[in-house]
Amino acid sequence: MHYKDWVRGELEELSKSLGFRYTPREELEDRLTRLRKGMEREGMEAFLVVQKMDYYYLSGTTQDGLLFVPLEGKPLLMVRREVERARVESPLEEVTGFKSTRELPSLIRDHWGRNSEPQTLGLELDVLPVRDYFRYQDLFPGARFMDASPVIRDIRKIKSPFEIELMRVAGDIGKKVYQEARESLKEGMTEIEFGGLLEAAAKGYGHEGLLRVRSLNYEAYTWHVLSGPSGGIVSQSDSPMGGLGLSPAFPVGASLRVMRAHEPILVDFGTCYHGYQTDETRMFSIGQMGKKFIGAYNACREIHDAVLEETRPGADCEAIFQKTLRLAEQLGYSPSTGRRGEPVEPSGHGGSYLGPPGLQTCFIAHGIGLELNEFPFLAQGQSYPLEEGMTFAVEPKIVFPGEGSVGLENTVVVTQDGYEILTPLEQEIFQV
Amino acid sequence: MHYKDWVRGELEELSKSLGFRYTPREELEDRLTRLRKGMEREGMEAFLVVQKMDYYYLSGTTQDGLLFVPLEGKPLLMVRREVERARVESPLEEVTGFKSTRELPSLIRDHWGRNSEPQTLGLELDVLPVRDYFRYQDLFPGARFMDASPVIRDIRKIKSPFEIELMRVAGDIGKKVYQEARESLKEGMTEIEFGGLLEAAAKGYGHEGLLRVRSLNYEAYTWHVLSGPSGGIVSQSDSPMGGLGLSPAFPVGASLRVMRAHEPILVDFGTCYHGYQTDETRMFSIGQMGKKFIGAYNACREIHDAVLEETRPGADCEAIFQKTLRLAEQLGYSPSTGRRGEPVEPSGHGGSYLGPPGLQTCFIAHGIGLELNEFPFLAQGQSYPLEEGMTFAVEPKIVFPGEGSVGLENTVVVTQDGYEILTPLEQEIFQV
Repeated sequence: MHYKDWVRGELEELSKSLGFRYTPREELEDRLTRLRKGMEREGMEAFLVVQKMDYYYLSGTTQDGLLFVPLEGKPLLMVRREVERARVESPLEEVTGFKSTRELPSLIRDHWGRNSEPQTLGLELDVLPVRDYFRYQDLFPGARFMDASPVIRDIRKIKSPFEIELMRVAGDIGKKVYQEARESLKEGMTEIEFGGLLEAAAKGYGHEGLLRVRSLNYEAYTWHVLSGPSGGIVSQSDSPMGGLGLSPAFPVGASLRVMRAHEPILVDFGTCYHGYQTDETRMFSIGQMGKKFIGAYNACREIHDAVLEETRPGADCEAIFQKTLRLAEQLGYSPSTGRRGEPVEPSGHGGSYLGPPGLQTCFIAHGIGLELNEFPFLAQGQSYPLEEGMTFAVEPKIVFPGEGSVGLENTVVVTQDGYEILTPLEQEIFQV
Repeated sequence: MHYKDWVRGELEELSKSLGFRYTPREELEDRLTRLRKGMEREGMEAFLVVQKMDYYYLSGTTQDGLLFVPLEGKPLLMVRREVERARVESPLEEVTGFKSTRELPSLIRDHWGRNSEPQTLGLELDVLPVRDYFRYQDLFPGARFMDASPVIRDIRKIKSPFEIELMRVAGDIGKKVYQEARESLKEGMTEIEFGGLLEAAAKGYGHEGLLRVRSLNYEAYTWHVLSGPSGGIVSQSDSPMGGLGLSPAFPVGASLRVMRAHEPILVDFGTCYHGYQTDETRMFSIGQMGKKFIGAYNACREIHDAVLEETRPGADCEAIFQKTLRLAEQLGYSPSTGRRGEPVEPSGHGGSYLGPPGLQTCFIAHGIGLELNEFPFLAQGQSYPLEEGMTFAVEPKIVFPGEGSVGLENTVVVTQDGYEILTPLEQEIFQV
């Protein structure tokens, strides 16, 4: 049997029997309709989609290739390596193989059906490497290139019922993993051992292991397990606590430090199902953790609940963030001065909201879906309204520099009149 | 205590006690000297290093920032978030903090000590996003930008004794993981469960979990466990077999398929220690695998040994690849026609070297170090000599479309008169 026939037969059957969910055609059509409204508004005659998650969102496949979306007419999926599998995975009608980017102009011209190439061509300039850009300039000398990333990021920020359902499954996987983690946490274990077990458990349920971020250098990972002093360490990532990590090459997340009784153990674990991510944080401890940490955790719960209280269509993202700053101050976790400024003394409790004094982050929630840094950001300078279908992870955290940190995080979707938690796990401290 | 003082005291102690190795100053000086030779050859007055692994290679830290390397004078490390930790990790003398890219021109001008900015400025144009490039054009209007990626990739291809030692440690971790995997492999387990256990074990020994590739869309991962028919599936990656994966969003690597007795189980596991990676593949089976798979595995061993026989300074990379094609043909694993062409019938054995007929890859080894796609490539069109200190992973693989695949992979370093295997693990089939 030819490989091609096997792919269209047995491979498709095997995939379905193992729970592969393909993006429905109507879902893609709706996404394309919304995309085209944005393209029209920007005067973009066509969009050449190169980035993997945008390409998945608009085609249903991640087989190596590009997607050409004209403002009018059908999109053309061009696949470099495995075109048969792309045909199984994508409901798009026009799918073709290619070997070299040199073929793209003629493939597109033939599909486009006009004598010229598009005069305005969108590319994701926020992530496309410069060298590739120069290559496209050579291939399409008549085109004026535009940044299509604002348009695609804008439509991706609103999730459909199909997407929300995949996120619910991710949230359910996370819930099982946290609940079972009670059994595996033991004194004498290192942070990374514990992180590895959580991840192995999640993968057994279909978690995809890689988390995705739209960035050149920022790398996401699931093993963010920080015990005692590790929780008070800042690192390369723009988060309240980065952790010690394993080496100067990976100075974030779990380390080889042995976890001890009575210290706070912060577990910030992302789960990915069919590309869709949820993010959640819970506190663990072996025996009871110190009272000041419990107090700070209760403050995080209060801030978390205050964010959800405001969560509904129309609420302003920056206003919600500012409200949490005021609340943290009332609760006694705000350093006296110095947001992003010079180091200052911690508050009376010794705990500092959103990072050590002088190194606080400026967001309380980040949008989440196929990537961990989607819109909306509930953050300083992000004044725009929440909309129904937006999904974000809200994560109040309090750091005690040199001692530890606590936090709570859930992923939620904005509903017609409020919110739904997609990570429905108990919020008590997981004490073993 | 101020956070800053804690970082320079306790954090440094804690890191060292947990085995952090910092890049020695002399090591960095040697790298900078070699870099400057390349810069001078290209007429590059300065290089602004933005990509995380290049930045780590030249500074010793991965704290979020940029490194300015003038052709003459000291480099300047500019750190966005955690400058104190960067000072602990990097032996460079000139380290400064910054908050906004707007500050870069004046920081650089002050350091550079001339009235003008560099007239030719290198950037890694193979990975730098276009939007960032436009930003640098605005910030440095007097500079002509050049692609610095060939220069940095060229020096990174030769590994120092310090780097090779880190790769040896990675290889030792991999060895322990494979040997212990014999104990955890059980009938009825899914591919991804097994992959998750391997990875958890590796992390416990200090494996960093993320593998790194220099690419916008190509994502590396460790859980490449392919059983039976999964091993005969091609996917998005340019490898002989991609596997089924977990969904259309992650259609590579281990799947939820239950592994059965007597089928070939291919485990291709990368290990990362202090950023340095080794890559290795071994075959597992529950009970004996079918005879044709054993025969094909022996052919892979023969091809692997033939590559190593040629491995020494001066050997031509493409010639070694071509030699393996001829050997595979002699051994009966070459489809009659169609490299990268139309599908053709498999060979008499049913096994096809480097991928299903028509979908074969065009390389037998890839350079490896901080990234999985470094120079050299022992591949079609890559005619250049091996040099002492180059490290690569050699991976002959044979695919039986729809049935399974076998392969062997080791990471080696080119020595003065031959090679050293950095993944010194027995090459027999791991039958349980």
